[in-house]
Amino acid sequence: MWRVLIGRPLRFAESSKEEIGSVEGLSALSLDALTSVAYGPEAILIVLAGAGVAVLGAMLPITVAIVVLLAILVVSYRQVIGAYPGGGGAYAVTKDNFPRGVSLLAGAALIVDYTLTVAVSIAAGVAALTSAFPGLRPLTVPLCLGILALITILNLRGVAEGARAFLLPTVLFIVGLLAVLAVGLVHPLAAHVPQPGRPIVATTGLETLGVFLVLRAFASGCSALTGVEAIANGVPLFKKPRVARAKRTELLLGVFLGAMLLGIAVLVERFHIEPRVGQTVLSQVIAASVGRGWAYYAMSVTITVTLALAANTSFGGLPVLGSLLARDNYLPHLFALRGDRLVFGNGIWALTIMAGALLIAVNGNTNALIPLFAIGVFIGFTLSQAGLVVHWRRTRQAGWRRRATLNAVGAVVTGACTVIFLATKFTSGAWVVVIAIPLFILLFTRIGAYYGREKDLLALGEIPAAPHGRPTLVIVPVADVSRLTAQAISEAESLGREVIAVTVAFDEEEAEVPQAGRAGELGAALGHGPRVADLERAWRRWHPGVPLRVLHTPYSSVVQPIVEFIDRLRLERTDQIVVLIPFVIPDRPWHWVLHNQLDHVLSQALRSRTDVIVARVSASLSEPPSTGEAARKRPV
Amino acid sequence: MWRVLIGRPLRFAESSKEEIGSVEGLSALSLDALTSVAYGPEAILIVLAGAGVAVLGAMLPITVAIVVLLAILVVSYRQVIGAYPGGGGAYAVTKDNFPRGVSLLAGAALIVDYTLTVAVSIAAGVAALTSAFPGLRPLTVPLCLGILALITILNLRGVAEGARAFLLPTVLFIVGLLAVLAVGLVHPLAAHVPQPGRPIVATTGLETLGVFLVLRAFASGCSALTGVEAIANGVPLFKKPRVARAKRTELLLGVFLGAMLLGIAVLVERFHIEPRVGQTVLSQVIAASVGRGWAYYAMSVTITVTLALAANTSFGGLPVLGSLLARDNYLPHLFALRGDRLVFGNGIWALTIMAGALLIAVNGNTNALIPLFAIGVFIGFTLSQAGLVVHWRRTRQAGWRRRATLNAVGAVVTGACTVIFLATKFTSGAWVVVIAIPLFILLFTRIGAYYGREKDLLALGEIPAAPHGRPTLVIVPVADVSRLTAQAISEAESLGREVIAVTVAFDEEEAEVPQAGRAGELGAALGHGPRVADLERAWRRWHPGVPLRVLHTPYSSVVQPIVEFIDRLRLERTDQIVVLIPFVIPDRPWHWVLHNQLDHVLSQALRSRTDVIVARVSASLSEPPSTGEAARKRPV
Repeated sequence: MWRVLIGRPLRFAESSKEEIGSVEGLSALSLDALTSVAYGPEAILIVLAGAGVAVLGAMLPITVAIVVLLAILVVSYRQVIGAYPGGGGAYAVTKDNFPRGVSLLAGAALIVDYTLTVAVSIAAGVAALTSAFPGLRPLTVPLCLGILALITILNLRGVAEGARAFLLPTVLFIVGLLAVLAVGLVHPLAAHVPQPGRPIVATTGLETLGVFLVLRAFASGCSALTGVEAIANGVPLFKKPRVARAKRTELLLGVFLGAMLLGIAVLVERFHIEPRVGQTVLSQVIAASVGRGWAYYAMSVTITVTLALAANTSFGGLPVLGSLLARDNYLPHLFALRGDRLVFGNGIWALTIMAGALLIAVNGNTNALIPLFAIGVFIGFTLSQAGLVVHWRRTRQAGWRRRATLNAVGAVVTGACTVIFLATKFTSGAWVVVIAIPLFILLFTRIGAYYGREKDLLALGEIPAAPHGRPTLVIVPVADVSRLTAQAISEAESLGREVIAVTVAFDEEEAEVPQAGRAGELGAALGHGPRVADLERAWRRWHPGVPLRVLHTPYSSVVQPIVEFIDRLRLERTDQIVVLIPFVIPDRPWHWVLHNQLDHVLSQALRSRTDVIVARVSASLSEPPSTGEAARKRPV
Repeated sequence: MWRVLIGRPLRFAESSKEEIGSVEGLSALSLDALTSVAYGPEAILIVLAGAGVAVLGAMLPITVAIVVLLAILVVSYRQVIGAYPGGGGAYAVTKDNFPRGVSLLAGAALIVDYTLTVAVSIAAGVAALTSAFPGLRPLTVPLCLGILALITILNLRGVAEGARAFLLPTVLFIVGLLAVLAVGLVHPLAAHVPQPGRPIVATTGLETLGVFLVLRAFASGCSALTGVEAIANGVPLFKKPRVARAKRTELLLGVFLGAMLLGIAVLVERFHIEPRVGQTVLSQVIAASVGRGWAYYAMSVTITVTLALAANTSFGGLPVLGSLLARDNYLPHLFALRGDRLVFGNGIWALTIMAGALLIAVNGNTNALIPLFAIGVFIGFTLSQAGLVVHWRRTRQAGWRRRATLNAVGAVVTGACTVIFLATKFTSGAWVVVIAIPLFILLFTRIGAYYGREKDLLALGEIPAAPHGRPTLVIVPVADVSRLTAQAISEAESLGREVIAVTVAFDEEEAEVPQAGRAGELGAALGHGPRVADLERAWRRWHPGVPLRVLHTPYSSVVQPIVEFIDRLRLERTDQIVVLIPFVIPDRPWHWVLHNQLDHVLSQALRSRTDVIVARVSASLSEPPSTGEAARKRPV
């Protein structure tokens, strides 16, 4: 079942090595940024709407400010591409240029950012769908989780060949949305048709536009800029000349995203669009431009699909980041293990669980996530730019002063934005991020300390003393004389100089445990007593040349007497002690219940003993395995 | 937490060996029978009520017939006590005197019977409580499950000292109920006060008393006779002279039970009591006799408590029966294992699950279970009596003809009753039992066949060839050079003539797996490549005298290349192969997540290999253990 869903194991050589061009770069690396037009403008409008309908006019100037910021970021990141052609993620750049703590801050911010990108993109995608098909609104959360599950499965399968497959929806999205905006600007088809849904504009208007309100609206709108850094992270994916192509893609992204943001802002003002319940702002803009005909529905579905693909790109990011952190000993090493399909499955699961929890917590409502969003991204922006300033000062290439100045401007602007976000959105949700990021950093350092201690204690990397063998004493717990017992004793003799078989005798027969009440069948229930005597008699007849020690116990546990026997031996002898546990492998999985799980229980009890080697030897009840040797050795 | 609930492990010597007298025998072994007056008479009345109010007069003659049957059973079982002083449960008697199939029928019938006794007693106890306190009625099922949970925990603790603790409620029950009935017969206090609750008598009266109806009422009423056999099962619990005391208890049971049944029947007729919703018949009888004052409430609570104790006695029975069946290889051997508290915990859990499922299925309604009840018991009666006939014929003691005749009469009568039950109650629920019993028998025989096959394949009980050792080849998977590795190689040299260290190298560096999208951090994620080269260099520097084999793999799995390496070795060599897996024991349980679970995964993968010994060697990261020897051996 799982195999069918996920697919057969892949060879490393089978993983695709697709290289992309400038336009494909948009579909592979820029969907997150481009699709943020689906929630960024709306985030501005919702903040403004809180102050009343008269201040909605501030939308356009705020959008212009955001587009200016976008231009600064594009210029800065074109420099990052040049400086880190190997992929300049914030974690890599800060690790290169700053002390450890800063790169952990970048790592924590990125994890928060990736998780929020998934949650916001999926929620916005479902909002686009439910705007077009209002009947689906009660299904918002199931739809969100369904899309999340689909993306998870595709990523566990390892869909590396994203760029080309994503090209068609990306082109549809860019061309379609620009065309719709153009129609709206030039010759709108349904500008004066009233929009469905109740407006959520405040009627108790204070109607004054304070600085704080403008900054909050700006901060919310900056969620449209998330994802601008992705191209710089993905430079190694491009065809050669990589740097030139990546820079061109970054420029294309800036032009398209800026055009879309400005176009939407102009149309919002012209059509007097307000935020509404159950209708996204973008849905209203499209409907007012081209009417609610086939073009509207096609565009809505395209937006949902591209937003889902944008969520998908985070699944390319967080697991890789997790593997880097795991290699640097800041996350469990499990995050650095590739699964059968060569993906970092544990990172994928971690992202799915975190994003799913967020979606459930906010009931699939995009606007509840906006105050949390962008903070992590802008911390990353700031740290990357600052890291590059250090980089330029260090390398002192030609023109380093100009480059450093550019990045310094970027760092200052994005740092200022981060402060604005925190100040204006703290109480409406940003506090979650303020708590989450230090918690992640604490987790990283605790894990790092643990691995450091392990390294010291195990003297990892040091050359230890030469190994030396010791005489070996093998203990074999037995319950009967059978071919399995004979096999176990043979193998014990292969392992050790000395072999002792042990069996446990309960003091039951002396005590006759009564059972209360209408017990029935009482007499026959008493005592394993004869069993041990039988075993001793059979052992004498067999005469395997190995002593059988009977361990008497007043309790009902088999494990305790064996452990105590080993403890006594430990004190008397310096030999290497091996406990060899025989067990039967049943021919059907559900037959396990028919065997008492002594081997499990005993090896669990001895698991924490560093002074004993626990070994298991098995006999199978099923057909012989195909290898001739194995068949020869089977007890039957 | 669990320890607190269940208690510390017990020694066999600590289990109480309480011996009981004749009167205590009533509390230890007869509660099930005595308390069945709480549902038996009501079961008759409900069948009659279906035909209309005029036929309720048939109650007394039917009860007389049941008391006659009781007398036959008491006489028969006094003979069983004499013949099987070691405890004459139906399974033991039939195993002694009949072919295997018959004893499996008895075992299956007993399991059904024990389960139904628990469910019926608890449901009837809660019905007594909700009759007195109608406000509790909506809580019927939670109350049932709560009592079941309490009984389960007490039995997992091992409350063997039942008889004396149960004496007080038993005496209160017998004396109190007989006194109430006497008051009702001589000078009732509230006979004419109308009873609460809607009558459930049919108004569309056919009002004719057919043979089928009488037989159905009789069959339902026979549920009052369940538990009569319990004393014969528990003879070993009595003080000496055991047989005489047990016979006296059986007689006392017969007298008390007969008196109660007749008294209730007479009062039901005299007070014109009908079955009512939310009021048990016994509750109405008591209320009519003594009024709804303190005596009524005290009696109601006493009935609930004694019914819960009656359910408890089944918990003394089924787990012991399960252990006997397990020893005879008809149930998983797990049922024959005693837990820390010396009880058969798996049997207790099985009974709790089955009874709980029944209670939930019928919503805690006693009368829905009555049609299923008594069939299993009467099959047991019949088989026991028939077995004794065979027993008397076989042993030919003095007076065997008379004894055999008595038991033959008992067998015929109870056999006839069983047929009547099946015929009259089949469609109203008895079919469940008709399906369940063969299914249990099928389960027993399938399990028996499995264990038989295991015995043949392992040659259990036969004396095998003498064991002989072989040269041993130890394979140690390593990932680094550390003290743990040094310890593992030392222990491997203790175990085998030849040691090979293996490590896995992924082909990753040649393939450069790309990650889609805004991957970030891409460049650094590629290749474990240098790791293996580092290891080989460190190995050469260490020079432990053991070769290091590098296993290259095109896949991402570590396990597969090691298994394939073992397969190749198997074909070339005849040595005993041991795989010695080193692992680290973290100092806190939750630190397990920080270690990749290679030892688990690899030993799981090799678990089904009978041709390889899987051994594990560990190093601890916690403080050294207290034993000096172990501390000396720790790698740190």
